[in-house]
Amino acid sequence: MTVFGESHGPGVAAVVDGCPAGLELSADDINEELSRRMPPDPNVTSARRERDEVQILSGVFEGYTTGAPVAMLTLNKDVKSQDYDKLNSIARPGHADYPTRIKYGGFNDLRGGGRASGRMTAPIVMAGAIAKKLLNSIGVQVFAHTVQIHEIRLNKQLSHEAIKQNAYGNSVRCSDPETAERMRAEILKARDEGDSLGGIVECIAEGVPPGVGEPFFDSLDADLAKIAFSIPAVKGFEVGLGFQASAVMGSVNNDSYAVRDGKILTLTNNAGGILGGLSNGMPIVVRVGFKPPSSIPKEQRTVNLREMRDTTVQVTGRHDPCIVPKAVPVVEAAVAIVLADHCLRSGSLPRLLGRKNS
Amino acid sequence: MTVFGESHGPGVAAVVDGCPAGLELSADDINEELSRRMPPDPNVTSARRERDEVQILSGVFEGYTTGAPVAMLTLNKDVKSQDYDKLNSIARPGHADYPTRIKYGGFNDLRGGGRASGRMTAPIVMAGAIAKKLLNSIGVQVFAHTVQIHEIRLNKQLSHEAIKQNAYGNSVRCSDPETAERMRAEILKARDEGDSLGGIVECIAEGVPPGVGEPFFDSLDADLAKIAFSIPAVKGFEVGLGFQASAVMGSVNNDSYAVRDGKILTLTNNAGGILGGLSNGMPIVVRVGFKPPSSIPKEQRTVNLREMRDTTVQVTGRHDPCIVPKAVPVVEAAVAIVLADHCLRSGSLPRLLGRKNS
Amino acid sequence: MTVFGESHGPGVAAVVDGCPAGLELSADDINEELSRRMPPDPNVTSARRERDEVQILSGVFEGYTTGAPVAMLTLNKDVKSQDYDKLNSIARPGHADYPTRIKYGGFNDLRGGGRASGRMTAPIVMAGAIAKKLLNSIGVQVFAHTVQIHEIRLNKQLSHEAIKQNAYGNSVRCSDPETAERMRAEILKARDEGDSLGGIVECIAEGVPPGVGEPFFDSLDADLAKIAFSIPAVKGFEVGLGFQASAVMGSVNNDSYAVRDGKILTLTNNAGGILGGLSNGMPIVVRVGFKPPSSIPKEQRTVNLREMRDTTVQVTGRHDPCIVPKAVPVVEAAVAIVLADHCLRSGSLPRLLGRKNS
Amino acid sequence: MTVFGESHGPGVAAVVDGCPAGLELSADDINEELSRRMPPDPNVTSARRERDEVQILSGVFEGYTTGAPVAMLTLNKDVKSQDYDKLNSIARPGHADYPTRIKYGGFNDLRGGGRASGRMTAPIVMAGAIAKKLLNSIGVQVFAHTVQIHEIRLNKQLSHEAIKQNAYGNSVRCSDPETAERMRAEILKARDEGDSLGGIVECIAEGVPPGVGEPFFDSLDADLAKIAFSIPAVKGFEVGLGFQASAVMGSVNNDSYAVRDGKILTLTNNAGGILGGLSNGMPIVVRVGFKPPSSIPKEQRTVNLREMRDTTVQVTGRHDPCIVPKAVPVVEAAVAIVLADHCLRSGSLPRLLGRKNS
Repeated sequence: MTVFGESHGPGVAAVVDGCPAGLELSADDINEELSRRMPPDPNVTSARRERDEVQILSGVFEGYTTGAPVAMLTLNKDVKSQDYDKLNSIARPGHADYPTRIKYGGFNDLRGGGRASGRMTAPIVMAGAIAKKLLNSIGVQVFAHTVQIHEIRLNKQLSHEAIKQNAYGNSVRCSDPETAERMRAEILKARDEGDSLGGIVECIAEGVPPGVGEPFFDSLDADLAKIAFSIPAVKGFEVGLGFQASAVMGSVNNDSYAVRDGKILTLTNNAGGILGGLSNGMPIVVRVGFKPPSSIPKEQRTVNLREMRDTTVQVTGRHDPCIVPKAVPVVEAAVAIVLADHCLRSGSLPRLLGRKNS
Repeated sequence: MTVFGESHGPGVAAVVDGCPAGLELSADDINEELSRRMPPDPNVTSARRERDEVQILSGVFEGYTTGAPVAMLTLNKDVKSQDYDKLNSIARPGHADYPTRIKYGGFNDLRGGGRASGRMTAPIVMAGAIAKKLLNSIGVQVFAHTVQIHEIRLNKQLSHEAIKQNAYGNSVRCSDPETAERMRAEILKARDEGDSLGGIVECIAEGVPPGVGEPFFDSLDADLAKIAFSIPAVKGFEVGLGFQASAVMGSVNNDSYAVRDGKILTLTNNAGGILGGLSNGMPIVVRVGFKPPSSIPKEQRTVNLREMRDTTVQVTGRHDPCIVPKAVPVVEAAVAIVLADHCLRSGSLPRLLGRKNS
Repeated sequence: MTVFGESHGPGVAAVVDGCPAGLELSADDINEELSRRMPPDPNVTSARRERDEVQILSGVFEGYTTGAPVAMLTLNKDVKSQDYDKLNSIARPGHADYPTRIKYGGFNDLRGGGRASGRMTAPIVMAGAIAKKLLNSIGVQVFAHTVQIHEIRLNKQLSHEAIKQNAYGNSVRCSDPETAERMRAEILKARDEGDSLGGIVECIAEGVPPGVGEPFFDSLDADLAKIAFSIPAVKGFEVGLGFQASAVMGSVNNDSYAVRDGKILTLTNNAGGILGGLSNGMPIVVRVGFKPPSSIPKEQRTVNLREMRDTTVQVTGRHDPCIVPKAVPVVEAAVAIVLADHCLRSGSLPRLLGRKNS
Repeated sequence: MTVFGESHGPGVAAVVDGCPAGLELSADDINEELSRRMPPDPNVTSARRERDEVQILSGVFEGYTTGAPVAMLTLNKDVKSQDYDKLNSIARPGHADYPTRIKYGGFNDLRGGGRASGRMTAPIVMAGAIAKKLLNSIGVQVFAHTVQIHEIRLNKQLSHEAIKQNAYGNSVRCSDPETAERMRAEILKARDEGDSLGGIVECIAEGVPPGVGEPFFDSLDADLAKIAFSIPAVKGFEVGLGFQASAVMGSVNNDSYAVRDGKILTLTNNAGGILGGLSNGMPIVVRVGFKPPSSIPKEQRTVNLREMRDTTVQVTGRHDPCIVPKAVPVVEAAVAIVLADHCLRSGSLPRLLGRKNS
């Protein structure tokens, strides 16, 4: 997968190479996933007002993928001009602009965060739309929800069915309506203070067959970790019990195997469906931690890079007090991309989906 | 980098391609790093008794790297035979043997955990020894220590100097002697109970220049996360504040820039030295969470794979009650490998280290 | 580099990742190279009538590359509908449609040759335009010319200056006007017979510094060979004397070194500038052999794939009697792409071209 | 595949990653292929006297591949010391030592040609032995023979059976005994003159299913071309008619399809089994051109690199007057490696060869 584009350039795009031939695919399939990124509540997340419309530039013929690279382009609309001069001289705290400026000698696109912008999550969602359709064809379902906003945690044990049904039912994408309401209130409070909040997204994949993954260096968890950290603002990633596994005894953490209805499963899923870098047939469970957005109206200390002196900055313009709700479909897409790739590599997903009647 | 070998095969090896020519390198350099993996205290970690002796098979001529791949081989000694038949039929809880068996049709090497064995961390340390020497040549230092064993956390704020000096001074590789003692007691208690413990290793890299990393998909944090999950038993990875960043306000999490002595730095380092996938010039700080070892003498419920029925198992033989102390140099090596690779990619590390006088 | 698109889809595109920041680049730079593919003489090469117009979708900001991927898109114009049904059932001799149909289960884009179309050389030229500009910045010049059409060979020894000046001065891109005229006559004759001709393109790169290339498996000649065979219709590739080197004695083939004006050079260049997979500082010389286009009006024996019986076919529509003249800039571009990539890898080309004044 | 080692270092090795589990494999399988590299006639090819003995270091358990990387090591025997000082100061014409010295700052291993040595073809043959066994399991056979030595060409049309049976029956590996005798005489004459000869090897692969290959950039012919140029001394590569296809009309070059016994085939095979980068089901036919060995006893003009002045050199020691006979199994191996890799990628070769009874 290749992605390109910038927040304020002509558009953003994803090119998916290696997609099997014979998958039914239309621009609407992609648009539907893209629309899930759209702000469900303008008070919670600020966003571009116009709906993204993807164009499929290649790789689809008569409604089916051809086996050639699928290129998907979404033109940027609703792009506002900015005070470039200020961006040139002031390093915004928490932003990538200072190291980016060093790396690219100042030639980088400054507008709207350029490549480090949240806008770059759109191509992940586009590619994820294809990955999800491929996975669905072999019975794999990927779904995510918000399990923490700032200090508000989802403390209830919810069934997978409940998560699938409720996650997108509220503005914060938390599967429990009562917790969701408290999360929303927390976000509105931060917004009113000119501040921002982080949170944690949990993603589950049901139906992944056992034995998927390529140890030593392309293990399933390693590739999931890598793509998670390709999403802007991510600072933590864990599988199954995750960091909590570091604080329980081996006898508690080990998932006991059992035979049920002639099939092997584990009685608990502390491993989060991954052992030794391979799927073990249980649901894959990962959590991704997001920091609070760095662009905040509050005054912050920083540096004028041209004059090399301390100064302060207030970052103005369109900003989200919390990007976690918008990140839920992005995490789903990222996980789906890695799973589809590994299912192809292991042969669980065929390279050719049928033969055309012609 | 390529690694190969199995726990109970002829040996384990690493092949490092792309190593610049002109680095002074001897087998002793590698052996020294390998010896840091050796158990500092036989009560805390069980281990092969004989010291590993690496052979450099290629890529070094007259004491310097040639630019060709550096292949390093360590023969396995002290290999005990095992009850294969049992391994064939019983899935050990928490082990990779069940999904491995599925993936490789039962042809996988069963002995000693095969490829999923902790033995496979030796090649990481071998390759890391080269990476560390390369990084040292441009003033980068990588060091790690144990910050948590089970529920015992290192709660003191220690200087980098203190960590560097004290981490290897005790059997658990915790930089604070008092905490180390409590950690050690916890491990001995678990051992006596036939159980095992996990923990967390923190790794710091000082001196990485700003602008290192290759967004979008080969960002510095993404590659660090990926290699971390290539280490057996890892279940969590975080950068800087990590998951804690999900619970603080943006105004707190953002690191303010300041000019000090003509140089730009940040007054805090919640970002852990990485912004937008690029190093920002501050120390890089990551934490890696390990689950407790899955091989425990305690009786556990599991399945007989041949007879497809529930049974129990007690895993016998040489086992560690806690692998975290041995993982400290492995995490250092893994982080060093990624940093050396990215410093080469960004040009911070030259592809040729001088010219030979001849 | 990634390319996507199909002959009769929305467009064709190239995405160049890893392009250094700070290269001055405009759509006109790309269009100029694209226009060199255009038919210099409608009697010799048939072609789309409208000029290609590239859009730069990403990676350029305020006239300079940013270090992000440069995506270039050219929309397809002048696309005529075709008799799909016939394409579906008849395997055209010499065409890729039979194995493509097998590989992609019939889902492949049938229109205009799809991905195997000569149209797919446009993205190579787009990417090559960037590569050439990068190489020019370090004094490397890449130029090609036609040295054979069917049995008409360029038999004169021409200076590099003569080749550079004359190659694009006639309709067959042969540097010698007299030979060019004979080549042209040969093409017109074949066209009148409803047949087609092949030929050979020679490409020269001056100014490549010695030591560029990555043996063992990414040697300079290996990568040049690989990209040459990525151009449709190529059946042969050779470096320096090439296959002729197989028929001369070692004492003749070896290029003697000499010191001239304090610099080391070779007195002959039978090696074509490459020894042991590395550039040796002499001009790089390669030759690429093209088969005659497979689409010809002449009746040919073939198979009806649906009915599985022998039949005949006459391929109609817009066809070139010889694609060699149009391939000249494609070969230049392909060679430039490999050289730019290897100059970047070896450090001969910096990853950052200056710093922006801002 | 990774290869490492140097001509005069401890040994040479190949590591094959991605080999399916369940292939029966022993050191003898590899040794047998390695022995085919051995000089069939000490008058024709000089060579190390001792037989190579490979050790399998990983990836094989109880006689079958495990799915883990297969590492194969052959220790170097019969290594003679050399006059390093001379190697340091004199650039041997036709050798890689001058550009290598530039690239690696003089740190490269000078002994016996180092990495550019013909010794490095041993790892290709080791890896090729595995590839051939994998291909045999799906009915693909790869075989090569010498078709030209200097100006002596094999002019007879031989059946594939004749080539398979006769190629290894004489000292030059030419399938026609009469031509072989003339080739041998030519080599002995060159040897007596202190000179050397090149030649051409043809390689054929029968049984490759149609549709194998990954256009655009990993097409089958592109990858074959790339690996061919990874073999030392190769200067030309062609598929099917190759460069000769540039001189015939399209109506002659196009291979007509026909239905025979319910199967589709072509009546000629000018394409050499590859169309549009994909196999078409016909035998794959490639030719690889080798230059004469550059190490010759004859006096040659060259340069003293330290003193930067013209001088002469006579290269002494163990040298081959012609390496083409030894290259025949190397070309076979190289072709087999690419075909096995592509058959795996296209799914023609399964990732798991059965299930173990245990």
